[in-house]
Amino acid sequence: MNTIGRVFRVSIYGESHGPSLGVLVDGVPAGLPLSAEDFAEDLARRRSGQPGTTARREQDTPMFKSGIFNGRSTGAPLMVQFDNRDVDSSPYESTKTLPRPGHADWTAWQKFRGFNDYRGGGHFSGRLTAGLVAAGIIAKKIIAPATVNASVLEVGGSRDYEPLIREALAAGDSLGGVVECRVRQLPAGLGEPFFDPLESLISHIVFAIPAIKGIEFGAGFAAARMRGSEMNDNIIDQSGTTATNNAGGINGGISNGNEIVFRIAVKPASSIALRQQTIDLRTGQPAEIQVRGRHDAAIALRVPVVLEAATAIALADALLILKTVNP
Amino acid sequence: MNTIGRVFRVSIYGESHGPSLGVLVDGVPAGLPLSAEDFAEDLARRRSGQPGTTARREQDTPMFKSGIFNGRSTGAPLMVQFDNRDVDSSPYESTKTLPRPGHADWTAWQKFRGFNDYRGGGHFSGRLTAGLVAAGIIAKKIIAPATVNASVLEVGGSRDYEPLIREALAAGDSLGGVVECRVRQLPAGLGEPFFDPLESLISHIVFAIPAIKGIEFGAGFAAARMRGSEMNDNIIDQSGTTATNNAGGINGGISNGNEIVFRIAVKPASSIALRQQTIDLRTGQPAEIQVRGRHDAAIALRVPVVLEAATAIALADALLILKTVNP
Amino acid sequence: MNTIGRVFRVSIYGESHGPSLGVLVDGVPAGLPLSAEDFAEDLARRRSGQPGTTARREQDTPMFKSGIFNGRSTGAPLMVQFDNRDVDSSPYESTKTLPRPGHADWTAWQKFRGFNDYRGGGHFSGRLTAGLVAAGIIAKKIIAPATVNASVLEVGGSRDYEPLIREALAAGDSLGGVVECRVRQLPAGLGEPFFDPLESLISHIVFAIPAIKGIEFGAGFAAARMRGSEMNDNIIDQSGTTATNNAGGINGGISNGNEIVFRIAVKPASSIALRQQTIDLRTGQPAEIQVRGRHDAAIALRVPVVLEAATAIALADALLILKTVNP
Amino acid sequence: MNTIGRVFRVSIYGESHGPSLGVLVDGVPAGLPLSAEDFAEDLARRRSGQPGTTARREQDTPMFKSGIFNGRSTGAPLMVQFDNRDVDSSPYESTKTLPRPGHADWTAWQKFRGFNDYRGGGHFSGRLTAGLVAAGIIAKKIIAPATVNASVLEVGGSRDYEPLIREALAAGDSLGGVVECRVRQLPAGLGEPFFDPLESLISHIVFAIPAIKGIEFGAGFAAARMRGSEMNDNIIDQSGTTATNNAGGINGGISNGNEIVFRIAVKPASSIALRQQTIDLRTGQPAEIQVRGRHDAAIALRVPVVLEAATAIALADALLILKTVNP
Repeated sequence: MNTIGRVFRVSIYGESHGPSLGVLVDGVPAGLPLSAEDFAEDLARRRSGQPGTTARREQDTPMFKSGIFNGRSTGAPLMVQFDNRDVDSSPYESTKTLPRPGHADWTAWQKFRGFNDYRGGGHFSGRLTAGLVAAGIIAKKIIAPATVNASVLEVGGSRDYEPLIREALAAGDSLGGVVECRVRQLPAGLGEPFFDPLESLISHIVFAIPAIKGIEFGAGFAAARMRGSEMNDNIIDQSGTTATNNAGGINGGISNGNEIVFRIAVKPASSIALRQQTIDLRTGQPAEIQVRGRHDAAIALRVPVVLEAATAIALADALLILKTVNP
Repeated sequence: MNTIGRVFRVSIYGESHGPSLGVLVDGVPAGLPLSAEDFAEDLARRRSGQPGTTARREQDTPMFKSGIFNGRSTGAPLMVQFDNRDVDSSPYESTKTLPRPGHADWTAWQKFRGFNDYRGGGHFSGRLTAGLVAAGIIAKKIIAPATVNASVLEVGGSRDYEPLIREALAAGDSLGGVVECRVRQLPAGLGEPFFDPLESLISHIVFAIPAIKGIEFGAGFAAARMRGSEMNDNIIDQSGTTATNNAGGINGGISNGNEIVFRIAVKPASSIALRQQTIDLRTGQPAEIQVRGRHDAAIALRVPVVLEAATAIALADALLILKTVNP
Repeated sequence: MNTIGRVFRVSIYGESHGPSLGVLVDGVPAGLPLSAEDFAEDLARRRSGQPGTTARREQDTPMFKSGIFNGRSTGAPLMVQFDNRDVDSSPYESTKTLPRPGHADWTAWQKFRGFNDYRGGGHFSGRLTAGLVAAGIIAKKIIAPATVNASVLEVGGSRDYEPLIREALAAGDSLGGVVECRVRQLPAGLGEPFFDPLESLISHIVFAIPAIKGIEFGAGFAAARMRGSEMNDNIIDQSGTTATNNAGGINGGISNGNEIVFRIAVKPASSIALRQQTIDLRTGQPAEIQVRGRHDAAIALRVPVVLEAATAIALADALLILKTVNP
Repeated sequence: MNTIGRVFRVSIYGESHGPSLGVLVDGVPAGLPLSAEDFAEDLARRRSGQPGTTARREQDTPMFKSGIFNGRSTGAPLMVQFDNRDVDSSPYESTKTLPRPGHADWTAWQKFRGFNDYRGGGHFSGRLTAGLVAAGIIAKKIIAPATVNASVLEVGGSRDYEPLIREALAAGDSLGGVVECRVRQLPAGLGEPFFDPLESLISHIVFAIPAIKGIEFGAGFAAARMRGSEMNDNIIDQSGTTATNNAGGINGGISNGNEIVFRIAVKPASSIALRQQTIDLRTGQPAEIQVRGRHDAAIALRVPVVLEAATAIALADALLILKTVNP
């Protein structure tokens, strides 16, 4: 369903080519200072403009529809809306019965029995992440002084990836990447054993970001090849500091006060300019499709700010819940 | 919190050395045939006994406390309980203020302010997975004819891992591993965009299994190094069959009717017989600990049946929810 | 929190004098025909205009921001928004530190530590029910052919209440009333024992309507004075028809296929033109307040359409959940 | 579904004639002292024994299966179980296809398609309230120093009701009643506008108690006949004390610091010894039924302790949630 969180609750709505999209945030403590400027930086980071990212230009001006009064949160549900302006749906009409490989076109058509808004991916569009980023800005304020920082580790398998991107753009192809996220100064105690470990809460929301195919915490998949004697992090002081951080800051599903570290795998954008095989939903016959429109060559580049937002949302909820038993 | 699921709801309780543990399952359709025999195979798979797994011997006899009448589910909440019998808490008394590296000891003590049941890991014990397996048996019946099968891909980095296990046992050390899960004959349409993609639902419950540090769907982390033209799965027939399955059977968070495939990283068991550094919670001073008691050298070996259960639980909920809009 | 429902989920936002208010509806089956005309009648019923109801004039034009495409629901979250236009906040400035007796002013100020939007009751305003009515229109379509009809039974203790209203208006006072709701053609089986009986689901949402102080099902409080032999409804045919309907169509928390009948007590509007005692939040001293602005003399008159909406929302969720086990 | 609460979560299971019943409580703060003695008084109040209450004799010894260690809550899920011992299912066999008027027999059979446990009302039995009372004892500790007290106001329409009960017993009939609940020393701020007003939270759980047909807060249904000038409670000091308490301690869905007052209507027990009309589920033909077995003549007498428990559970959850924004 379209809501996440137990006490800090975030609901997403909108479509890529509909009139608006946005986010409804409930459980925001009253009195939090919130202004348009607070939203500017992260929304700008999310917005297109880097080499390898789509040409669609949206102002992404956040409109505060509720929950803010005199520059502060009121404690009532907080609605942030974005209008869609730079919309060109024409490329989608001719191919609306040709589900694009790698996209949600076929599954959306199947699940919603053909009633889904297919234009620009509709509700499945990466554009929806604008709402996620807006909620993340609020969440970051709630978890302060803890900080969340994500960065691209590699694109196309390389840490020096700009030439690869140019090459992929020229070829009409796209590249995947790996993004890492680090949370500092998070108190110990967040997360619950069975069934809300911190890894569960983070991965749940992270896999809602389009194009994510994997997540690993601390040593992650490398842990599968380690011995217990290598993997275990020795505890070196009373505050729980560990000599190493193979656990990624989480033991038994609960934050241990060390840095939270995890990485995610971002697949290459599904929209490519090359010819691909699909079927025509109308006729059931095989067909070729060549996706036009405006797309990213390396969506991994735009993921960090979205990943930060998603992480902050999960942490804000866990932190507020911790206060119910440990105020 | 201790419950997962929206309409098929599973709640876990119990401690490793308490009187009982078990699972409460709500939302079970009435009329499902359920007998002790149905539970025997998977509970036996979970139970110890393989080389490299702990020596603790529990009968794991499921006691049906509610929700079953005349051999069928009644539609009321279904409670399955297991008694703890082969309990020896003595090894834990002498080290109760020495948090074991890699375990939840320190975080549990911190979160619950010293009131947690520390014996055998308490509520954080892998023994709790008996309840998960019991719920999984019910879930598997609900999702039939879809089937869930998990298997160990590698232990200690090797597919031929028996000698490694013997060696680790002898050294008092432990090994990690990779487990793969495949779901066949699952209908298309399960999962929801923002915020309940099928990857989110599966990863949420999977990270509640102790010792999991990573999960990847389809091509997973390899997708980060692929191009869109390699990654995209061409659609080859009306039922959505794809030529490849890099998506792992999920597009846009929704099952596409192909096989669901994912892998998880299992860390080496934290309990090892070697000396490790920790601090004494009583004095705040550095201390050495050597974990005694009964443990697994390769918990990955016991994960498949638990992973199947967790997966089936997530899928049963998603399948029942799909019926609300697509009956 | 601001969301209700398990699979048919309704979230409310907005303030009386903010830019907008509205409702976000999730879990709407795809393909439901929905047009502005479908919303016209119930929104008009809710809007002011009857004698005894407030003079505020809002067009209440529903703006569909998401979830509708080509005149049908898409299955994605559906957002309906209303702009506030006829807003005059000036009456509230001079009295903003004087909590009005009977209103949420004092509790909102206390709960939100003074950061709440006090203008026109802010998020607590009856104006928020526009969103509820919008969601109710969708819900009514989902539960069709079942129908929900509410009507005013009495105002000021009288079934012939127009003269009383004129008198109350002239006196600057307000009147309470009783509203009855009847649901016909609802299938048997909705509702769950412990803790989601149909009475629980209905009363939960009904008490979210401002000014409701009581609810009773079937014989209700009169049942407290009946004997079992009078109260029990004899069953007279295979489809569960009962000779009487003292149960109000619900046994054991589950609809029995007979008409659902319940009544609610609506208190007189808190806003009256007479002098009342309060305290000044700034000084802590006693103060007098005389509420200006535009108000209703008998809000019970506007409750029926809101009550229908609330009831339909609860029933739509229960009906969709029933499909998970009884498709 | 069988769980209530957002952060303090209570799940009920069991059947009247099954092996056990009980309650699983999650979100209990760690360190709460809890012993068998703490449970004795309220469980004794609930247990049968007063004139007019059933002859079934159960020890109702609470068995703590998890979540308690060294006499205190651990913070892990807390399970309290009761065994059924004094069970005699024979009276139910001969009438199992004859749904008793006023009972859940017909709706349970319909909803669960004949698979429900019909013995003694199965999961719908008032016996399930033992679990509710157990959870209430924990909840009462959480909300302390606030206190919850419920008492019978009238039975059979009379405040002097003992002769009426004897008469009803002799006649094989049953009587309804009214029970009032008062909560003192509850802080202001509990409850949420849209959709979790305190009245919503309380009424939701209260209607899960079998046999409740109505609830009213403060002036309740009398408010429908009052004028605003009578109904509004003047505020007389800085802490929000009001001169009257027609609101029942709740404004805008939020506790205002005054006493919480509400009343519920309890219907007469459905089980009576007189002949009633029903249909035979096997044949579809009309039939007569005369309910044997052990029953209450005035279940209202047993409701107060259950009502206190239900109320405390709702308040504990609301109080813990309040800490998330107002710690």
